[in-house]
Amino acid sequence: MIKVALIGRGNVSFHLTRVFRATEKIGVTVLNSREEMPIDKRKSIDICIVAVSDNAIKEVSKKLNGSDLIVAHTSGSVSINDLPNGCRRGVFYPLQTFSKEREVDFSNIPICVEAESNKDLELLSELAHCISKNVQQVSSAQRKSLHMAAVFANNFTNHLYEIASEICIENDLPFDLIKPLILETADKIKTLSPFEAQTGPARRRDLSTIKDHEELLKDSYRKEMYQQLTRSIQKTYGQKL
Amino acid sequence: MIKVALIGRGNVSFHLTRVFRATEKIGVTVLNSREEMPIDKRKSIDICIVAVSDNAIKEVSKKLNGSDLIVAHTSGSVSINDLPNGCRRGVFYPLQTFSKEREVDFSNIPICVEAESNKDLELLSELAHCISKNVQQVSSAQRKSLHMAAVFANNFTNHLYEIASEICIENDLPFDLIKPLILETADKIKTLSPFEAQTGPARRRDLSTIKDHEELLKDSYRKEMYQQLTRSIQKTYGQKL
Repeated sequence: MIKVALIGRGNVSFHLTRVFRATEKIGVTVLNSREEMPIDKRKSIDICIVAVSDNAIKEVSKKLNGSDLIVAHTSGSVSINDLPNGCRRGVFYPLQTFSKEREVDFSNIPICVEAESNKDLELLSELAHCISKNVQQVSSAQRKSLHMAAVFANNFTNHLYEIASEICIENDLPFDLIKPLILETADKIKTLSPFEAQTGPARRRDLSTIKDHEELLKDSYRKEMYQQLTRSIQKTYGQKL
Repeated sequence: MIKVALIGRGNVSFHLTRVFRATEKIGVTVLNSREEMPIDKRKSIDICIVAVSDNAIKEVSKKLNGSDLIVAHTSGSVSINDLPNGCRRGVFYPLQTFSKEREVDFSNIPICVEAESNKDLELLSELAHCISKNVQQVSSAQRKSLHMAAVFANNFTNHLYEIASEICIENDLPFDLIKPLILETADKIKTLSPFEAQTGPARRRDLSTIKDHEELLKDSYRKEMYQQLTRSIQKTYGQKL
């Protein structure tokens, strides 16, 4: 059994607590980020997962300095070197979007692990394999770029859904009309690359429709976004701008 | 049985042909856009679906002027008034992204119908109901905005996947790492509104991560897109810019 202490009260720790508790091979203790872990308790723990917000990682992990357990954070953008160097530093980054209202199936969530020794990497990987089929060794530099890719694929994509939803509402149309399209757009990437899957006026250089849309878009934010994304698609497909 | 003639050789007509042929209640004849439909043939058809590119709709449908069948196009952005006014004009717009390589399940695809008389609207709706559970009456003005919403939700979203994929490849990471995130991002909107589902540095105003990403982004297109989408998210959540 891998003995894990989990620190934090956010979305990631909420879901990690659930899945760790549901996994026989893992024993989990959940701690508040302000709690101090008693010395004798530390000795019975293999890995301490610091699942707190990026700017709290340093502060919280500092308290664990000098202990012999692995101290791993769960952030996409924080380097392993930001952990105190008097402990066995590690990263345990589940690449997914977490909301408390949504259950997630960890078995398909990529867990990106990083450590400073093979022994620690093995233990972190073993922990990751207990909950997921998809475990990857990813360096701090790679993880930073991966997190940025995730911002495009998730945060920005969701914001485009939000704009689509606003446009529907403004035109007395249910957002439900767009949902099958959103689901198919995502599902397509299982069998086609995004490059192959691209359709629409920008891809086929349908200037008349593009012009119509620009006229329809009264909000300057939306209009600039429309124009910029259109130009970027045209550039991707080697069209003259 | 509803007797349908289908004109066109693109993605939409490819998939409509398949689903019409697989539906018992529909009899379908497929025509090339250059073919003239003989007068006696016209008499045996109820609806002619003109599934050609937007800029060919006028030209192709002109040939059907004067006939007593319903002439319906399948475009998101073309007005019903662009069809010749000597025929029973209609619209039969399936709101989905179509690629020849991907099979689609029409039963969940919203079909937006429009006509100039109740009788024609009923027949177009009946045809739509033969292949889909989701049939909506949508005016030309609404459809234009709906199509634009679809450009945000599909075309632009897919382009963000493309950028995420490029970032992965540039950092020796498999794009597969991002796919579960993309699927969950789309799946979330079944239970959460995009407004509720939003996460990430822009939403939580994590300026340090935003700055890091801006430094990582060397390509000016990507960087501007990142900044613009970030600003738009911040505006949506009432943050000072």
